[in-house]
Amino acid sequence: MGLTIGVDIGGTKIAAGVVDEEGAILDISTVPTPSTPEGVINAIADAVRDVSVGHQVEAVGIGAAGYVDDKRATVLFAPNINWRHEALKDKVEQRVGLPVVVENDANAAAWGEYRFGAGQGHDDVVCITLGTGLGGGIIIGGRLHRGRFGVAAEFGHLRVVPDGLLCGCGSQGCWEQYASGRALVRYARQRANAAPENAEILLGLGDGTPQGIQGKHISDAARQGDPVAIDSFRELARWAGAGLADLASLFDPSAFIVGGGVSDEGDLVLDPIRKSFRRWLVGSQWRPHAQVLAAQLGGKAGLVGAADLARQG
Amino acid sequence: MGLTIGVDIGGTKIAAGVVDEEGAILDISTVPTPSTPEGVINAIADAVRDVSVGHQVEAVGIGAAGYVDDKRATVLFAPNINWRHEALKDKVEQRVGLPVVVENDANAAAWGEYRFGAGQGHDDVVCITLGTGLGGGIIIGGRLHRGRFGVAAEFGHLRVVPDGLLCGCGSQGCWEQYASGRALVRYARQRANAAPENAEILLGLGDGTPQGIQGKHISDAARQGDPVAIDSFRELARWAGAGLADLASLFDPSAFIVGGGVSDEGDLVLDPIRKSFRRWLVGSQWRPHAQVLAAQLGGKAGLVGAADLARQG
Amino acid sequence: MGLTIGVDIGGTKIAAGVVDEEGAILDISTVPTPSTPEGVINAIADAVRDVSVGHQVEAVGIGAAGYVDDKRATVLFAPNINWRHEALKDKVEQRVGLPVVVENDANAAAWGEYRFGAGQGHDDVVCITLGTGLGGGIIIGGRLHRGRFGVAAEFGHLRVVPDGLLCGCGSQGCWEQYASGRALVRYARQRANAAPENAEILLGLGDGTPQGIQGKHISDAARQGDPVAIDSFRELARWAGAGLADLASLFDPSAFIVGGGVSDEGDLVLDPIRKSFRRWLVGSQWRPHAQVLAAQLGGKAGLVGAADLARQG
Amino acid sequence: MGLTIGVDIGGTKIAAGVVDEEGAILDISTVPTPSTPEGVINAIADAVRDVSVGHQVEAVGIGAAGYVDDKRATVLFAPNINWRHEALKDKVEQRVGLPVVVENDANAAAWGEYRFGAGQGHDDVVCITLGTGLGGGIIIGGRLHRGRFGVAAEFGHLRVVPDGLLCGCGSQGCWEQYASGRALVRYARQRANAAPENAEILLGLGDGTPQGIQGKHISDAARQGDPVAIDSFRELARWAGAGLADLASLFDPSAFIVGGGVSDEGDLVLDPIRKSFRRWLVGSQWRPHAQVLAAQLGGKAGLVGAADLARQG
Repeated sequence: MGLTIGVDIGGTKIAAGVVDEEGAILDISTVPTPSTPEGVINAIADAVRDVSVGHQVEAVGIGAAGYVDDKRATVLFAPNINWRHEALKDKVEQRVGLPVVVENDANAAAWGEYRFGAGQGHDDVVCITLGTGLGGGIIIGGRLHRGRFGVAAEFGHLRVVPDGLLCGCGSQGCWEQYASGRALVRYARQRANAAPENAEILLGLGDGTPQGIQGKHISDAARQGDPVAIDSFRELARWAGAGLADLASLFDPSAFIVGGGVSDEGDLVLDPIRKSFRRWLVGSQWRPHAQVLAAQLGGKAGLVGAADLARQG
Repeated sequence: MGLTIGVDIGGTKIAAGVVDEEGAILDISTVPTPSTPEGVINAIADAVRDVSVGHQVEAVGIGAAGYVDDKRATVLFAPNINWRHEALKDKVEQRVGLPVVVENDANAAAWGEYRFGAGQGHDDVVCITLGTGLGGGIIIGGRLHRGRFGVAAEFGHLRVVPDGLLCGCGSQGCWEQYASGRALVRYARQRANAAPENAEILLGLGDGTPQGIQGKHISDAARQGDPVAIDSFRELARWAGAGLADLASLFDPSAFIVGGGVSDEGDLVLDPIRKSFRRWLVGSQWRPHAQVLAAQLGGKAGLVGAADLARQG
Repeated sequence: MGLTIGVDIGGTKIAAGVVDEEGAILDISTVPTPSTPEGVINAIADAVRDVSVGHQVEAVGIGAAGYVDDKRATVLFAPNINWRHEALKDKVEQRVGLPVVVENDANAAAWGEYRFGAGQGHDDVVCITLGTGLGGGIIIGGRLHRGRFGVAAEFGHLRVVPDGLLCGCGSQGCWEQYASGRALVRYARQRANAAPENAEILLGLGDGTPQGIQGKHISDAARQGDPVAIDSFRELARWAGAGLADLASLFDPSAFIVGGGVSDEGDLVLDPIRKSFRRWLVGSQWRPHAQVLAAQLGGKAGLVGAADLARQG
Repeated sequence: MGLTIGVDIGGTKIAAGVVDEEGAILDISTVPTPSTPEGVINAIADAVRDVSVGHQVEAVGIGAAGYVDDKRATVLFAPNINWRHEALKDKVEQRVGLPVVVENDANAAAWGEYRFGAGQGHDDVVCITLGTGLGGGIIIGGRLHRGRFGVAAEFGHLRVVPDGLLCGCGSQGCWEQYASGRALVRYARQRANAAPENAEILLGLGDGTPQGIQGKHISDAARQGDPVAIDSFRELARWAGAGLADLASLFDPSAFIVGGGVSDEGDLVLDPIRKSFRRWLVGSQWRPHAQVLAAQLGGKAGLVGAADLARQG
């Protein structure tokens, strides 16, 4: 099969890209994300038709946040869009006249990294995506592990603190409350509030108040040596690394890939994660250690992965 | 391939059994477990030779507690026997003249249940063994998931309480400190100590002191309505079920199988585990639920599973 | 000194009562709670003047939620009203022409119970108030323990779960997130959501949805045997009792008094709290146990206590 | 009253000292600690008689680890010596012919610091002693707060981690498992085991293995910049400071005094404790902050305090 289209549904825009067999994006089209469930489907179709012009495309892969069923056809539940048992595959196929595969967006991103990014050369890979929340994907023996019902790899909802922080999922103590972009901001605000004299650079990058601290301020401030910003990354890394150690006990992959906006900071965040991973890895002296790698495809991993999953059929 | 031998290495005895293609044990031989690493290897060979008499066996599968390498040949680390990078496969092959496969004992038991026990008809199964500690095994797509380095499915060391109880592995807060036979005894002793008037039946079955409470007393007392015994099972089930909910978020199997001595109590312990599983399952209303099944092969699962893994080669 | 006035500032109304030396309320006047800080002060003055008519009153005691300074004059910080370093004593004295004493409302309630309620006959008492949140007060050697800066006995913000639930105070894992009326509602909603078939009575008392469950439904349902309602009270009691055991390790009082709306349920909630207290009390077999008593003055404890504190001067 | 004797019962030796009204030790005598309960009593008497020679002493104060009753006469329970309801006051009075006061050793040390050490000038002081375990004492309004039954200020057994580490007291998650000399050693060993390359100095001070690390190595290594040693102190400080923040919410003292062997390291450990205290102090911007002071009397605080308590009668 030749060219396929990958679709990434973001909070503000929907991107559709024509992707070749090497994972290269030949063309891309974006439209704003509509606010209604039906609107999103129409917008996906628009973006697909738009980007297809001049390309011989054979299939479409869509990465969607939420639970996707075992047939990769229906979105059982999407937390951000109001989709409940939405027959996304059928509706988009009707509109664009191409075979469609739907996949969880973090799964698609994991597949993209496995095929064309940091995971090349590994057959057993676990990816975590540290974005606003925490998503993940699993490759076992060169195949995407979707689970029996299609909802595997929901790492963000691993319970890491009994009776811990409330999560949007209704549960408490979920890993994404402790290791995600949102958690990073909380760490920085709490620390800046408690000790503003250690957060002068950080506070200076925003409006001067702890509540005004945003994610981008934290990485900028950390690079400039701000103690609160550095400590906030360290706290994030403590939780991220400890969770990876748990995943090593369960999956035993040869590599972990850490993606998402937080990981754009590279070794600023990856080195502390590696330390924490090693610190908490059970039986660490008796086993080979998985590598902890930075993702390579950035925000395009999901689109590229979805396109490739569509190619595989 | 016809008959194979499965070997189970227990703390007090080593059992070798001749197993047919249906998982039936045709013959069995046991020897006491020696105290030296080399002694154990000789005892395995003795038991294998002894039970082979009169059977046409083609291979041997050994289930061993600890880390087994990715070639299923070397025990990297055994917590109970002093094996460190022990070339078990080679040493036993030299002694018995048959091909040998080594597998982690909980993996072998999971495979046995999948092939001939509660897991029949399922392709994606996660097993936990609630014995003295907590072990586990994973079947994905009808294949045993060993991990890249052979050490997957170490469920007992999932960190469920940050800064929690010390574990023999050197880490803290490991799941097996909260969901295992040993944990059950701790729960009962603590509760009987705090409120002996609620543990009259339970205390009466032992020597009358909290420290004298043993595992078997707790199930007997629970069946007789002892409040402390019932509450101890409930506490065990809280932790077991919450952990299964985590595993559902990660693996998304169609069934969980709960084995080990604690599960011999059947619905006394399984029903509370099912409740707790459902209580903590993330997104429970938007996804199919895995079944939580009792293991069917009892203490023979490891032996039968090891024999079958040897047959598969 | 003869009669004094106690003032209780609630979220919807302000009550001023004339109280005699025996703690009896002779007359009471209520006004709605205004929405501005200055409005509240005027309303307090109005209520005081109104209720004074026909009585010879000599002083006024005001119970206010928040931090009150060591001079019992200034509200340093009130979480509900926008008071920051508010000179409440001076402002009210100017308006009503009587000496005024300001006290934290939970301290005032504790004093009321000590003098005229469940604490009579005890010299060392620790009170907790399980209302929407969790407040407290301490009597040591027959004196209210205010602390060096006036802000002692902030029990609600004891950290009982590291990295636990966010609290309005900005911290995490505060006791009032686990033991309070608000926590009780959360327990019931979570459990009803996970297992609606065990919450039929409870759900039937509201609008049928977990989110529609209110505090009063839970006690009604518990009395009717609803499993989720009963289990929610048990969870509340686990945390309340464990916290009292901590306070016993620190203060070692002869009695605990449990007040607030939750405690209106009497032994429905007090018995499980007593069990949990005993379960977690350190060294329980080597020490006399403090009693755990139900408050006797209900919602009037704060008003009566504030009046009596004004009398003591 | 003029001179009194203070007695400190340690694990290896018993010290008796003649102390004047200014807290100065005029003479001191030590004997080895016998292994039997009765032997300890005789040894106390021997040490008292020995040190009395040439002094006009009027009373004896004994600091003992464990629960001391409200009459300051009977040791209800001593964890190290096998004393259970031991009438220590009577037995020693019979042997030495002087009035005897018995006090919990951490209470005695707190009193010593309050009267003659870091607590001078404060009326409301909370002391913690970071020794092998964690003890404490409370001064409120210039008086030692013993509690109604004599067993207040058992800070070490505050539950800071639900389902946390087992404690010798039978409970779990006690503060002294996280903030004490023993905890410090555990932190260092765990970290050195996980990352020996960051503990080269520390490991070099002992026998080269993580298990060989002792407390004194950690402070020496920290002063030489060893990363694991520094991080171990930081972890200790996290827990110590967070606990002090809890105690501030409860007692609201004007000062905390940190004593015990761990605090001998001075600002190496006190500065991180101060930071952590401030980090976790609830409502920190709306209240005056208690000072966190280093103890001044070192290992003599208990002896001096016990002597002074005997003087007060």
